[in-house]
Amino acid sequence: MTGTALTPVLAPMAQAEDGYDLWLRYARVEPSRAGVLAAHANAIVASGSSPTLAIATQELQRGIAGMTGTTPALSATVQQGALLLATPASTPSLPVKTDGLGEEGYAIRTIMMDGKAVTLIAANSDIGLLHGAYHWLRLAQSGEKLDNLDIRSAPKIGLRLLNHWDNLNGTVERGYAGQSIWDWWRLPDWKGPRYSDYARANASIGINGTVLNNVNAKADSLTAPYIAKAAALADVFRPYGIKVYLSVKWTAPMELDGLKTADPLDPAVAAWWKAKADEIYKAIPDFGGFLVKANSEGQPGPQDYNRTHADGANMLAAAVKAHGGIVMWRAFVYAHDNPDDRAKQAYSDFKPLDGKFADNVIVQVKNGAIDFQPREPFHPLFGAMPRTPLMMEFQITKEYLGQSTHLTYLGPLFEEVLDADTYAKGKGSTVAKVIDGSLEGHKLTGIAGVANIGVDRDWSGSIFNQADWYAFGRLAWDTSLSAETIAKEWAEMTFSPDPKVVQPVVRMMMGSREAAVDYMTPLGLAHVMDTGHHYGPGPWVSELARPEWNPVYYHKADATGIGFDRTKTGSNAVSQYAAPLAKLFGSVKITPERDLLWFHHVPWDYRLKSGETLWNGLVHHYEAGVNYVADMQTTWASLKPYVDAERYAQTETFLTIQHREALWWRDASIAYFQSVSQRPLPAGSAAPAHDLNWYKAQKFPYAPGHN
Amino acid sequence: MTGTALTPVLAPMAQAEDGYDLWLRYARVEPSRAGVLAAHANAIVASGSSPTLAIATQELQRGIAGMTGTTPALSATVQQGALLLATPASTPSLPVKTDGLGEEGYAIRTIMMDGKAVTLIAANSDIGLLHGAYHWLRLAQSGEKLDNLDIRSAPKIGLRLLNHWDNLNGTVERGYAGQSIWDWWRLPDWKGPRYSDYARANASIGINGTVLNNVNAKADSLTAPYIAKAAALADVFRPYGIKVYLSVKWTAPMELDGLKTADPLDPAVAAWWKAKADEIYKAIPDFGGFLVKANSEGQPGPQDYNRTHADGANMLAAAVKAHGGIVMWRAFVYAHDNPDDRAKQAYSDFKPLDGKFADNVIVQVKNGAIDFQPREPFHPLFGAMPRTPLMMEFQITKEYLGQSTHLTYLGPLFEEVLDADTYAKGKGSTVAKVIDGSLEGHKLTGIAGVANIGVDRDWSGSIFNQADWYAFGRLAWDTSLSAETIAKEWAEMTFSPDPKVVQPVVRMMMGSREAAVDYMTPLGLAHVMDTGHHYGPGPWVSELARPEWNPVYYHKADATGIGFDRTKTGSNAVSQYAAPLAKLFGSVKITPERDLLWFHHVPWDYRLKSGETLWNGLVHHYEAGVNYVADMQTTWASLKPYVDAERYAQTETFLTIQHREALWWRDASIAYFQSVSQRPLPAGSAAPAHDLNWYKAQKFPYAPGHN
Repeated sequence: MTGTALTPVLAPMAQAEDGYDLWLRYARVEPSRAGVLAAHANAIVASGSSPTLAIATQELQRGIAGMTGTTPALSATVQQGALLLATPASTPSLPVKTDGLGEEGYAIRTIMMDGKAVTLIAANSDIGLLHGAYHWLRLAQSGEKLDNLDIRSAPKIGLRLLNHWDNLNGTVERGYAGQSIWDWWRLPDWKGPRYSDYARANASIGINGTVLNNVNAKADSLTAPYIAKAAALADVFRPYGIKVYLSVKWTAPMELDGLKTADPLDPAVAAWWKAKADEIYKAIPDFGGFLVKANSEGQPGPQDYNRTHADGANMLAAAVKAHGGIVMWRAFVYAHDNPDDRAKQAYSDFKPLDGKFADNVIVQVKNGAIDFQPREPFHPLFGAMPRTPLMMEFQITKEYLGQSTHLTYLGPLFEEVLDADTYAKGKGSTVAKVIDGSLEGHKLTGIAGVANIGVDRDWSGSIFNQADWYAFGRLAWDTSLSAETIAKEWAEMTFSPDPKVVQPVVRMMMGSREAAVDYMTPLGLAHVMDTGHHYGPGPWVSELARPEWNPVYYHKADATGIGFDRTKTGSNAVSQYAAPLAKLFGSVKITPERDLLWFHHVPWDYRLKSGETLWNGLVHHYEAGVNYVADMQTTWASLKPYVDAERYAQTETFLTIQHREALWWRDASIAYFQSVSQRPLPAGSAAPAHDLNWYKAQKFPYAPGHN
Repeated sequence: MTGTALTPVLAPMAQAEDGYDLWLRYARVEPSRAGVLAAHANAIVASGSSPTLAIATQELQRGIAGMTGTTPALSATVQQGALLLATPASTPSLPVKTDGLGEEGYAIRTIMMDGKAVTLIAANSDIGLLHGAYHWLRLAQSGEKLDNLDIRSAPKIGLRLLNHWDNLNGTVERGYAGQSIWDWWRLPDWKGPRYSDYARANASIGINGTVLNNVNAKADSLTAPYIAKAAALADVFRPYGIKVYLSVKWTAPMELDGLKTADPLDPAVAAWWKAKADEIYKAIPDFGGFLVKANSEGQPGPQDYNRTHADGANMLAAAVKAHGGIVMWRAFVYAHDNPDDRAKQAYSDFKPLDGKFADNVIVQVKNGAIDFQPREPFHPLFGAMPRTPLMMEFQITKEYLGQSTHLTYLGPLFEEVLDADTYAKGKGSTVAKVIDGSLEGHKLTGIAGVANIGVDRDWSGSIFNQADWYAFGRLAWDTSLSAETIAKEWAEMTFSPDPKVVQPVVRMMMGSREAAVDYMTPLGLAHVMDTGHHYGPGPWVSELARPEWNPVYYHKADATGIGFDRTKTGSNAVSQYAAPLAKLFGSVKITPERDLLWFHHVPWDYRLKSGETLWNGLVHHYEAGVNYVADMQTTWASLKPYVDAERYAQTETFLTIQHREALWWRDASIAYFQSVSQRPLPAGSAAPAHDLNWYKAQKFPYAPGHN
């Protein structure tokens, strides 16, 4: 018997590079680099016995073992090449000053000790040491030099939180990475490894809190069984320096215990919340506090009782005050019976309340005045409430930016908002300075990101979506970082420090958000996504009950032109900005073109800076977006030799989807707007593949994330 | 600076033994066994180039490499110790007869070839070789001898299917292992590794088909986009010998294309289904066929048009006939306007249709007449429709048997049903012989299991639930296997062939289902679970709209006694069984006590065979169930040294939950039935921990699996 041998096509093991390890892969490095690493981490010396310190030393061991193949010993004595972890408490004669590092910061310095060169990670607390350990591991993974280190880092923003819009039934509102990672049903008993891996990932980028449940909250999350479940998670997260918070439903006292009212000035209501807070703190002594969505999109709130947001927030704040808790009160409000420009309503509601909030309340403001669009001007509340701490709310999950399958790196979006100048106290009054408290001297500071995390093996629905989680955490820790620096770090750790990989990947990432703006909502357009699921284009939608639910409300395209007039001749939303910006945005000629149609209704034949008409420019923007995706496909294909098969295939597939959908966005948008503008396409531009009715007929009843 | 070294508590890598690898772990064996393995598999010789053969050889390489550390080469020539894979087509002079092995069976024999001892895996097809390869790997993993092999195996049942009750939105009806593994949204583009790993697992136990969507079907699954998604899955599964099937909604022609009727005798309806079948077969040339739930629990069906189930099934059967497809028509029917005993209705509806179904229709019958209870007598339709092929429907997912967290091995349940004697053609007319076609000479044969698979990392919600998937597949392939043999195989592969592990694990498993019967529904009770989610006890529930939705309908406890009189003095359901069984079940004195209250309303003071009263015996059964769980806890604790940390902890935790819930079942049941029986507890029995109202007040609005 003879046979023809088969070509061996051994499938990779299922666990190989499936994305689960995020940026903490600790992949084996080449021998010369391994030698460098080993020489700077041949032993770990740490004093103390806290769970946090154990995590820090284990993470260093795991990382170094992964990269070099050798696990450094834990040693009681210093030797040449050791890593030392020390606090003033453990080591009174600490040779590095820890002033100014706060409770979370750290210093990393190469020092000589007893004639031996060692790397000292110093901090005021074991949590600081953990952050320092992750910093050192980042340097190690990224191929950075490890000698002559002299690093000091401490966060300027106090609360660096993820907001999970996770429901108790396991679904995730606007989640595109599978169900919630909180297995509420089997908590508090079963605590699988995913929880500590979640905490590791967050600690590695400096996130220090997590709001466990959806802002569209169920009262049940405040019942005893669910408090016990939250407490079980808090127990897992605590040694990683991460506190838990809960979103609360305003009418919980009525739903759970039959109170007749939820009026915040009713003593029985205040007493209920006080007792509930006491119950929570008994189970979770370091519970962070409450997040509240009230009087917004159908949620009940204090306005139902003719009280203000401040009345509501302050009543809750009093309930948690004695425990050191805080209340995060969202400014994302708009009302169906308010005929004013939706973009103005949060400012109109909250600006008059400035100075009226208790000192443990922080108002959480979305980055823009509408809702996490591909691009929005920064929210006019930033800089407008000097006596109130304001907290940033970014969306990491990409409800409006391609959901799980579009490569649209959000670093540039976050950076653009943080660097925006409010002019609140003159030039340089950036949004970052508002939220880090430095502009007005606030001590309570915060930034939140709506998580993009689910049970998908890769956590975030795609490998590249992990970069958005990473970037949020890194910017929350240090708003001065550039999106590009962060992309580079992430690519080095996620793929390889090889510049042949890093440079093309960073290049793809850095232009990708602008590409999404181009193929979805160029030149300041917004909220033209199809209804409900917000997946794909729906600029024609006009029949929904509430005017501000309809895309036509936002783009206002008609025979004369397109765009929302927010100048004095329109809604005058520009007046909500500081004078220099009100002037800038108030004039069509000087408004940055990227925000043009956000602030102005502009004739189709208006000349853009390029000299082409608005209509032609609009079409060209759509095309530029599509072309960028095609370029990413080419770039990614060139990386095939350098990327493992599974992660290569996923990105290749998702780029194919993205290109198809970018074309769909272009074609559907052009088909619709052309029906309004009645202009011919510019020379060289292809007609849409289908007629307008075809695009209108596309329905997606099972689109994810829409609960 | 000095420090106290921390105890190294290196966490295991997250991927280590998380259950993802199921029974295909191929864990490294001890050196002496590795030598034995290597000596019998030092090379692989296979002729041909089919994807299936490539999978078989790769699986052998993967398995042997995992167990021994050395990957056997693919060789074109025979050497001592080689594994040969051959079919009559590839090797005309095959030294083993393949007659009788069919298209899926295989022979494994140690032979001498050119003076060299080799192991030949022979089959009529590459699929047979794949099954043979998995058999050999099972022997290798289980520590069995590998020399002097002489094995022949072929399935007696043709269709061995999983039924996925998976919805298009990702939820799984009665799923307790997370969302559906079908990522419908990102199909057909993205085909992650989970699909081929699913196919591997199924092929390894001989499953050859999968119904992708819930029997409570949406019409959308028959639209072009969803057919393309199903085709993408079919492409992945095909080389593993697994066909895809779809559940269909009866009114799809009306919902999708505006037909005015779904009357099966309407030519337009028949034409619609014919065209739809053609469309499906164009995309999936080997599409298996349709599964139908009609006129059951609110689903539409032919009876809505005064047609019979046969009319409906035959119309669909005609649509797929030319393509070689089949129709599986479920007999799970009961009607809200039918006052007769629910247990009788399927028989009443279907028995008169015997002989009226087309030859490519098979009627799918649940194992019992009610609904997957912890114990039910076998369904009276088995043996009662000699001219109709009947297919078994088991539930692998444990809707009524503790869902994800109770260790209740279903092997004994499956075995009990398959071995049950229908007496249809005299003694020995077992259910197994009905469904394998041998009793009546049917060629179309089948068995289906409602899958317990979801995106949970361990696939099935717990490590031990994997055994139910495994047992279903193994019994579907060979109904003569014992549940204990299968448990042993599974434990050997899942944990270790070490008898110190295997014997206690098998002992736990083998009694676990009876324990669940004891603490939930002893002595023939059924369907006393709480409403809707079926999680936990609800024997008091009596207020639901349809009588047969209420547990009180099933147990009929009153001051005089408890149980459902299905004898001549009652519903006379016993008359649906063959005469010897009708007599057996018709007499309270000789009815097996395990089915006592299923067939009889029995006085509380009736004397059981043990001599104790029914009431006392009932209480003692509840207690025996609880005690068994406590014993499992003790046994499992003794296995801690032999089981990896993550899987040990999961089972330890789940047994804690199971024990708590078994107690809850005992206490709630006793509290309720005592309120009816007004009998004191037997001496030594503890009173329930709470009063009846406490048990009634327990609500679980977020219980999983209830869509």
